[in-house]
Amino acid sequence: MSKLILVRHGQSEWNLANRFTGWWDVDLTDQGVAEARAAGQLLREKRLMPTVAYTSLQTRAIKTLHLALEACDRLWIPETKDWRLNERHYGGLTGLDKQQTREKHGEEQVHIWRRSFDVPPPDIEEGSEFDLSGDPRYAGIPVPRTESLKLTIERVLPYWESDILPRLSSGETVIISAHGNSLRALVKHLSGISDEEITGLEIPTGQPIVYEFGDNLRPAKERYYLKDA
Amino acid sequence: MSKLILVRHGQSEWNLANRFTGWWDVDLTDQGVAEARAAGQLLREKRLMPTVAYTSLQTRAIKTLHLALEACDRLWIPETKDWRLNERHYGGLTGLDKQQTREKHGEEQVHIWRRSFDVPPPDIEEGSEFDLSGDPRYAGIPVPRTESLKLTIERVLPYWESDILPRLSSGETVIISAHGNSLRALVKHLSGISDEEITGLEIPTGQPIVYEFGDNLRPAKERYYLKDA
Repeated sequence: MSKLILVRHGQSEWNLANRFTGWWDVDLTDQGVAEARAAGQLLREKRLMPTVAYTSLQTRAIKTLHLALEACDRLWIPETKDWRLNERHYGGLTGLDKQQTREKHGEEQVHIWRRSFDVPPPDIEEGSEFDLSGDPRYAGIPVPRTESLKLTIERVLPYWESDILPRLSSGETVIISAHGNSLRALVKHLSGISDEEITGLEIPTGQPIVYEFGDNLRPAKERYYLKDA
Repeated sequence: MSKLILVRHGQSEWNLANRFTGWWDVDLTDQGVAEARAAGQLLREKRLMPTVAYTSLQTRAIKTLHLALEACDRLWIPETKDWRLNERHYGGLTGLDKQQTREKHGEEQVHIWRRSFDVPPPDIEEGSEFDLSGDPRYAGIPVPRTESLKLTIERVLPYWESDILPRLSSGETVIISAHGNSLRALVKHLSGISDEEITGLEIPTGQPIVYEFGDNLRPAKERYYLKDA
């Protein structure tokens, strides 16, 4: 039986500062590092050993993956990084803290952007401090100017179908280290969660979530937290 | 102009303990970690930014790569791990310290194994403590029972030709994080060093070596240490 392990990166500097991060590249905090290591130790304790790894192009997810794999002695497995696993792009909100955003746009509007399925925040300003369209990391990649969760899903799922799902069909244990919203995209798809409900689903940091796959490449049962297994 | 960066992993626990390591998987020491970070900082200072990375299946080389890439903000580049970049397999010497080896085999014989081009040490004993033939990391891989430098070269060079060299032809800046003997294999080939001379060539740990390639996929000039550039 193939297994899929989803891990949201450990606490980042901007999780801590309560700033909209999106595609901006911030590092893990010390707590985030500890969460990533604990995730790997849990994999080892539960003897759930990944055989192939996927992550985004963002440092916090890549480091979470590396720290977790090191803790379960699996640094040597193949690893692929792809922008389609990046966090949702928060557009013009990138860099603002939650208080600044409320002051600038009003509480109600901010709630809509955070909790609606298909309303993206305003575009990021071209050439602004947080505009990554000229970053060599994203050369040749269609860097979004903003994304709703719906738009995020529209680039995560094709990648899932084309690149990751085939690995499960060959019996691999796949680990994906990614972000709150790119993981929501996968959980929505695999657990059949509605557009309304998915925006309220919190995915905790550094807490491995497991799906077991049957022969038909559909989850054989509902997802569970590895800690509860 | 394409560039190739070779980095030998930072000091490992068994470098420090003076034990034959080969394919045995040991971690970096604190000094090794510092060397790896310094290598990445040097890449950043000299503005030599890798665009694609290769390493072995061994923790000390993988961690050296990750620490160096993090220090130059390039954790996001594609990374491929392959057993053909592993250290030379030291056969039955694996795990012995240099003093034990001299006592067991005599000073002269040890000198021959360390310095001859094509005389491998005795085979590793099947089922011995350091036998890795059942390690999941090497599933499907023809784990050697021992290797001379010549045998090491015979698995490094085909991989170089088939997988790494083509990346240089497409203009990439390739970084290879590997081991004393797998890097000797490449330096011998690229700098045309004789069988006699190559066994005495020391490759320092954590010190980036650079080759610049011309259009004909041959080095345009002799290799140099990046620190001297």
